[in-house]
Amino acid sequence: MPNRTVFFVSDGTGITAETFGNSILNQFAAKPRHVRRPFIDTVDKAHQVVREINHTAEVEGKRPIVFITLVDREVLAIVKDLSKGLVLDMFNTFIEPLEAEFGITSNHRVGRFSDVAKSQEYTDRIEAINFSLAHDDGQSAKNLESADVILVGVSRSGKTPTSLYLAMQHGVKAANYPLIPEDFERGKFPSSLAPHKAKCFGLTIDPERLNQIRHERRPNSKYSSIENCRYEVREAETMMRREGIAWLSSTHKSIEEIATTILRDIRPDRLMY
Amino acid sequence: MPNRTVFFVSDGTGITAETFGNSILNQFAAKPRHVRRPFIDTVDKAHQVVREINHTAEVEGKRPIVFITLVDREVLAIVKDLSKGLVLDMFNTFIEPLEAEFGITSNHRVGRFSDVAKSQEYTDRIEAINFSLAHDDGQSAKNLESADVILVGVSRSGKTPTSLYLAMQHGVKAANYPLIPEDFERGKFPSSLAPHKAKCFGLTIDPERLNQIRHERRPNSKYSSIENCRYEVREAETMMRREGIAWLSSTHKSIEEIATTILRDIRPDRLMY
Repeated sequence: MPNRTVFFVSDGTGITAETFGNSILNQFAAKPRHVRRPFIDTVDKAHQVVREINHTAEVEGKRPIVFITLVDREVLAIVKDLSKGLVLDMFNTFIEPLEAEFGITSNHRVGRFSDVAKSQEYTDRIEAINFSLAHDDGQSAKNLESADVILVGVSRSGKTPTSLYLAMQHGVKAANYPLIPEDFERGKFPSSLAPHKAKCFGLTIDPERLNQIRHERRPNSKYSSIENCRYEVREAETMMRREGIAWLSSTHKSIEEIATTILRDIRPDRLMY
Repeated sequence: MPNRTVFFVSDGTGITAETFGNSILNQFAAKPRHVRRPFIDTVDKAHQVVREINHTAEVEGKRPIVFITLVDREVLAIVKDLSKGLVLDMFNTFIEPLEAEFGITSNHRVGRFSDVAKSQEYTDRIEAINFSLAHDDGQSAKNLESADVILVGVSRSGKTPTSLYLAMQHGVKAANYPLIPEDFERGKFPSSLAPHKAKCFGLTIDPERLNQIRHERRPNSKYSSIENCRYEVREAETMMRREGIAWLSSTHKSIEEIATTILRDIRPDRLMY
């Protein structure tokens, strides 16, 4: 039962602050309650969130942890000075040394996302999402030449979530293409992928884990049987090895880790810009 | 031309550090070069990245900004003590006050993602992605009762990226359903959505912006014409207003902002857990 609350108070979405704060909190055994309060960009909203924080402090008898990313000085002062929490200022902590280093003051402007919807980067991201959707699960072999990455692997090895993540987070046009029993019987790598081998990346998975995942979708089928899972995984790994395609196992990895490894290995340019 | 480099050095993916660091850097007019160096979890890799940082410092004649999230004390010490950069320690800066507050030391353990692939939260996220894909663009009216959110709006108003983002980031099962000219002619809200109105959320968009987006897909069609875009948007807004469905305009908003607003308005429980 959590008896301590962590607030994430932001003038934007607070998503990054929360994700980042979580990775810090994960270093502790404590499992506090999480409350995200986005779009706190006026004095009124600041007072409201301070009331909520102080009420929580009273009820729980412990001061809440308050991660803040607030740019506006007035809003910041209210939350910082009036709330009975341990306030951790994720923003200004780093703004100050950077101001000194750059020799300029920051603009202290809320709305870091403003006009984002019109930026080229944003347009590219949306286009990449559309591309990845249109090229999910080998749906289309058209335009594979404009793919940045083509994920290959047996059904349910994690290709779809990884492609979508690469598109959404990195604006990478990631197609994905299944390796299926017919490919193994023919003993041939899918011919539509042959010209694009250099940008193919393989995902594999423990047969036992695959068996579990497939079982949830089609229980007691040949598709989900452990024998078939072992067969497909073995054949897929043999094929990728033979074709010289880099691959990793998705079994114990998060989507974020898989995506980062793929970029590091086949598109290192996407980690530098 | 950037003449200063920012490094993001992490023992994990470094994605959060980079996203967060970017929101801080966006407060400055400077546009430095970005280099992300993930999975720096050994002494050897630490020395390698230090060499890269110091080489950059020499070439550019300015010390690089180095955001770090490194848990292992030995790796941390190498990067912190040996690199000729302005090192901003995003991790330990907050770990220390938290250790004091909780009265316990953190575990200083790398691999915050380990076993993540087996956690319930992660499984829910993957399931939500599959749900959102299967319920993209009104593909299936089956199981709409298990949707957490149903996005409605005219074609190209931003429903698909938002649904996928809600699923991927928040594990929210987000279906999306287009409002089409036939619905406007009939003057009726799609009947398969009628029982689920409480979880519907609308997206609208400026007709001019819609015209641009549609033009890229189908130039010089009725579909993309400004007259038709104005007609569809007006009818969709009228319909949503009449049906009492909350909605917002996606025109100047990022996917993250749209998703956060939807959660705040119709699933506030998803911002607290």
